[in-house]
Amino acid sequence: MKLSKQFDRVGMAAAGRDLYQFAAELYPICRSITGHGIRQTLRMIQQHIPLKIFEVASGTSVFDWTVPKEWNIKDAYIKDRSGRRVVDFQKSNLHVLNYSVPIHATMPLGELRPHLFSIPEHPDWIPYRTSYYKEEWGFCLSHSQLVALPDGDYEVSIDSTLADGSLSYGECFFAGQSSDEILISCHVCHPSLANDNLSGLTVATALAKLLAELTSDLRYSYRFLFIPGTIGAITWLARNQDARTRIRHGLVLTCLGDPAPFHYKKSRRGDAEIDRAAAHVLSHLSERAEVLDFSPYGYDERQYCSPGFNLGVGCLMRSVWGSFPEYHTSADNMSFIEPKCLAESLRACVMVLDVLENDRRYRNLLPFCEPQLGRRGLYRSTGGDSIADEVNARLWVLNFSDGENSLLDIAERSRLSFAMIFEAAQLLRENGLLELVLGANDGEEVAAKGVHRSTASDF
Amino acid sequence: MKLSKQFDRVGMAAAGRDLYQFAAELYPICRSITGHGIRQTLRMIQQHIPLKIFEVASGTSVFDWTVPKEWNIKDAYIKDRSGRRVVDFQKSNLHVLNYSVPIHATMPLGELRPHLFSIPEHPDWIPYRTSYYKEEWGFCLSHSQLVALPDGDYEVSIDSTLADGSLSYGECFFAGQSSDEILISCHVCHPSLANDNLSGLTVATALAKLLAELTSDLRYSYRFLFIPGTIGAITWLARNQDARTRIRHGLVLTCLGDPAPFHYKKSRRGDAEIDRAAAHVLSHLSERAEVLDFSPYGYDERQYCSPGFNLGVGCLMRSVWGSFPEYHTSADNMSFIEPKCLAESLRACVMVLDVLENDRRYRNLLPFCEPQLGRRGLYRSTGGDSIADEVNARLWVLNFSDGENSLLDIAERSRLSFAMIFEAAQLLRENGLLELVLGANDGEEVAAKGVHRSTASDF
Amino acid sequence: MKLSKQFDRVGMAAAGRDLYQFAAELYPICRSITGHGIRQTLRMIQQHIPLKIFEVASGTSVFDWTVPKEWNIKDAYIKDRSGRRVVDFQKSNLHVLNYSVPIHATMPLGELRPHLFSIPEHPDWIPYRTSYYKEEWGFCLSHSQLVALPDGDYEVSIDSTLADGSLSYGECFFAGQSSDEILISCHVCHPSLANDNLSGLTVATALAKLLAELTSDLRYSYRFLFIPGTIGAITWLARNQDARTRIRHGLVLTCLGDPAPFHYKKSRRGDAEIDRAAAHVLSHLSERAEVLDFSPYGYDERQYCSPGFNLGVGCLMRSVWGSFPEYHTSADNMSFIEPKCLAESLRACVMVLDVLENDRRYRNLLPFCEPQLGRRGLYRSTGGDSIADEVNARLWVLNFSDGENSLLDIAERSRLSFAMIFEAAQLLRENGLLELVLGANDGEEVAAKGVHRSTASDF
Repeated sequence: MKLSKQFDRVGMAAAGRDLYQFAAELYPICRSITGHGIRQTLRMIQQHIPLKIFEVASGTSVFDWTVPKEWNIKDAYIKDRSGRRVVDFQKSNLHVLNYSVPIHATMPLGELRPHLFSIPEHPDWIPYRTSYYKEEWGFCLSHSQLVALPDGDYEVSIDSTLADGSLSYGECFFAGQSSDEILISCHVCHPSLANDNLSGLTVATALAKLLAELTSDLRYSYRFLFIPGTIGAITWLARNQDARTRIRHGLVLTCLGDPAPFHYKKSRRGDAEIDRAAAHVLSHLSERAEVLDFSPYGYDERQYCSPGFNLGVGCLMRSVWGSFPEYHTSADNMSFIEPKCLAESLRACVMVLDVLENDRRYRNLLPFCEPQLGRRGLYRSTGGDSIADEVNARLWVLNFSDGENSLLDIAERSRLSFAMIFEAAQLLRENGLLELVLGANDGEEVAAKGVHRSTASDF
Repeated sequence: MKLSKQFDRVGMAAAGRDLYQFAAELYPICRSITGHGIRQTLRMIQQHIPLKIFEVASGTSVFDWTVPKEWNIKDAYIKDRSGRRVVDFQKSNLHVLNYSVPIHATMPLGELRPHLFSIPEHPDWIPYRTSYYKEEWGFCLSHSQLVALPDGDYEVSIDSTLADGSLSYGECFFAGQSSDEILISCHVCHPSLANDNLSGLTVATALAKLLAELTSDLRYSYRFLFIPGTIGAITWLARNQDARTRIRHGLVLTCLGDPAPFHYKKSRRGDAEIDRAAAHVLSHLSERAEVLDFSPYGYDERQYCSPGFNLGVGCLMRSVWGSFPEYHTSADNMSFIEPKCLAESLRACVMVLDVLENDRRYRNLLPFCEPQLGRRGLYRSTGGDSIADEVNARLWVLNFSDGENSLLDIAERSRLSFAMIFEAAQLLRENGLLELVLGANDGEEVAAKGVHRSTASDF
Repeated sequence: MKLSKQFDRVGMAAAGRDLYQFAAELYPICRSITGHGIRQTLRMIQQHIPLKIFEVASGTSVFDWTVPKEWNIKDAYIKDRSGRRVVDFQKSNLHVLNYSVPIHATMPLGELRPHLFSIPEHPDWIPYRTSYYKEEWGFCLSHSQLVALPDGDYEVSIDSTLADGSLSYGECFFAGQSSDEILISCHVCHPSLANDNLSGLTVATALAKLLAELTSDLRYSYRFLFIPGTIGAITWLARNQDARTRIRHGLVLTCLGDPAPFHYKKSRRGDAEIDRAAAHVLSHLSERAEVLDFSPYGYDERQYCSPGFNLGVGCLMRSVWGSFPEYHTSADNMSFIEPKCLAESLRACVMVLDVLENDRRYRNLLPFCEPQLGRRGLYRSTGGDSIADEVNARLWVLNFSDGENSLLDIAERSRLSFAMIFEAAQLLRENGLLELVLGANDGEEVAAKGVHRSTASDF
């Protein structure tokens, strides 16, 4: 299958190295849902793939929301009476409550205290906190730092701006043979946090790079979104409402760099083709992989799967957000992610897309009894032994290719890998035993879009 | 939810005390499927709720059955040669085979023996036996009593009458906003047996009392039946055949006083709304609660779920009939049931009815992406933490309120309690984010009754 | 039920003795997919049942296949330098690669070696190997024989013929009340191998013998096929393409003589009535019985379940082909099978067919409440006890006989045996409480065949 072959040309080791290196370059930047950090990040992605960057003005209405003011920050600190920076934005951009309004004041610890956030259970980690939609200021620090602060006055400074500007996001589109689209979405709004979200955006970038070389051969068109979480997805959907009739499948990518087993969270539909493709691929990658039911909390699948859109978009992760202690803390750093894990995640994406690209229905042209595979060299010659998986796959494809079952249906039922079922189908087709069936579920058909459209326009 | 609030006004302790006290008052009466005992019981229930008592003459045809002669009993005994009552109805009304025809004779033990019933495995317990439809006489006694009887002649006396009269039952009706009814049925024909059936009838009485104070606010109309087992249900159904088109949901209540975990036996339909409501409530009450498939043996759900009626009526129990050793013996006495258990059972009924009363479909009025809950004060303000169940419930209700899913559907899918989902829906509706959907499955609609009617008139 | 009664007249012991005896008579014959061995076998079956033997000329096209040349063999050996037969066809017909072309030559061991087959893991067993569709010669021998062969020249002789002739198969048909057919198919092409396939063909023969005495009483018509594996099924189907519209249910019988628990492999449909009947019967025969999903590899169900036919044909086995070490070796001999196991297998077939013969829909004529079974003598008389399974079965049949549920549906749901449910239905029908419902799924109806036909002619 084309994508897997393309991945294999690069190889796991080189892919892991490149992914980790790109994450390391992006790590120091102080990103937020708007501002210079995200803009700089998008420009760095642009060096790898043909990314179009969009700016949407503060105050723009996007469905029930409004694009917020743009936030930028130069410096922030808490100084003790001796003038020493006891909390210093220059050391970690997590130290400042993301989207803090500017402040410069001196105040006793008692007054400062409500603005300080720490994690008592992990006294050495700095938490990551945000206040996008309520004007607030604050500092995040390790709990051991916090408890060590003596009483007395502190100089508090946040040199930030919150002013009309714009929200930035990036979009990368590859036209395939069909105008039906596969959406790959990742958020790019977190500051120095590695697994959430640098792993997602680096894997998405590498995936786009890989597809760029295959584009004319692709069945589907592909749309990659690099957006700030929540408000970015909402903004994009508000500005691209017609796209929902074109998006057939999609993946939100995040938390893909740590060594936990894969987790796939299903779309709201629960039985969308992406759900089945991801579940199939993961089950063949590892017994420890888990498929989770949809829930309306999480990442941007919340927006893509809101009832008005109800797109077939799931979320691929290794560790699940919120379930690992390092989540949204300074411990989610470059040591928490590994080149090999990033590369495996990229390969998993490639395998899922290969299923979608190649999942077709075929019809057995000799449906009455088995065709004689032996005289075509597709069977073993000496009877009495057991048969190889390759031969077994051919029998499965022949038996279930009645025009109703797709290759994925057959892979699921046979418990053989999609790759093996696909190879069997190709071989049988080359031998004149199968024909491709084009129908309402094959992606290119008007009828299919019609069905999709009616689902999406229930409201 | 209204019923729960009403229950909370009384409180568990007071509810348990009242239930147990009422059971204790009813305990000594010698009830049967007809006669003074059941009539006296109905009059005592009438002191609590507006019960209408019906009398149906012996000999009346009710479907395949005939209302039997009325049975009454004043006294019964077995005297030994010394004139001592060795078995005495005055000590326990279980001692006489219920519905025994009158007899007064002297006979040797050998002749008496076939008329004596005991339980060898529980030598101190008196069994409860009946012979409603075959004219017979007999005595029930503990096995230790039985084996201690010396040979010789015994004077046997049963001072009963079996004569034309009537069968009595009680009915209590509360009109709600809809003419669709919820049926609560319990049998009231057992003599001094506490769990089966005093627990059922006291819980039903308390439930009716609680509803009486809410009646104009209720979505459904409620019909309570206090009837003799089997023949009572058959008689009522024969006289109220049109009611089957009005009964949407129902519960048979029995064995609700012992400390066993809850058991709910599903209706014949298996997926009726009452089945799902009861299963949901019990799963949130206790991990030990069990849901049982329908079977055609048991209590009066046998009649309500006969194929000609096929009503959505299940059976709520703690211990399951026949499965506990005390069942139908003198050990099912006032020590076997507990105030707290009775009160918990009442509350479980209340919670199930609250689900039925409040299970509606809503439509998210802002279905494209999530509405901004934060600016409505319906979200947390500081990002980065996990969200509370209350907020999660709001996201579930918004995401799945597409006009198809009811609140119970959403509660099942989210694994949050119906109460929490309901609260979320109320809050979202107050905030203009949801609207109620009235449709074919909402109870008040003509279409729904039509569907129901056609199911019930397959014959 | 008729078939079970007929089996009981013979009894397990006599059935086992006869089955084993017949297998022993057939054991020495050197069978193949064509030739004298299979012809002699069919004539021996003919002594028990009215079998019609068909001959299909070599070269005949059957779907994608061609009937092969006929193979016959007189003798085969490998002689060492001293003239001693170190491998001797006269000692075991497994010694020759089945379908070996003739050869007479002297060659050194090195040249002979690629033509020798053994099983290193089981050094005392001779493997069974075939080469039907590739002209080849070879010998099978025990691994200990093989390794003991000294270097040097060997005289190799296979006195076989491979020439135009015919393929033989046997067919036995019993007309029942309906023209709808049940197919019983077994392969008869293996040489001295007991479990695979003598057990299958002896059980099929005994089953046909049993049906022969009931034929006018049977609901279905029955067609027994005794055919060479794969090519025989393909040949029969090619010559009887119209039959597929008449075959409603079917079983492939094989591996039925060893003491392993029963295994039933479902038809491609997965929910065909035969699948449910077999699963039901096996679940009541033993907790160790297993039901396997369909897969397109195995015995002749591969052909009957090819997508163009898609018949409701499953495969009944004890040990599953390929999963036991003795499979296709000299260890699958008369010691590997047991009279008792063969008889149990025959009885299992009988029970499955009894389900198919008697699975009907009934309608409760008194569907409103329970009918009063007591006054018809169909209930217990003294209340208070639990009820017997027989009474319980009557309640199940009454409750679920709404014209939709068949007796098998009710047996599955109640977890009572089909036999008990059937007895209840007969009794209730005799008492005027049930009527038979004739409908689209009852086998005799034109509508049913129409449905079937359209499924089968999707191609």
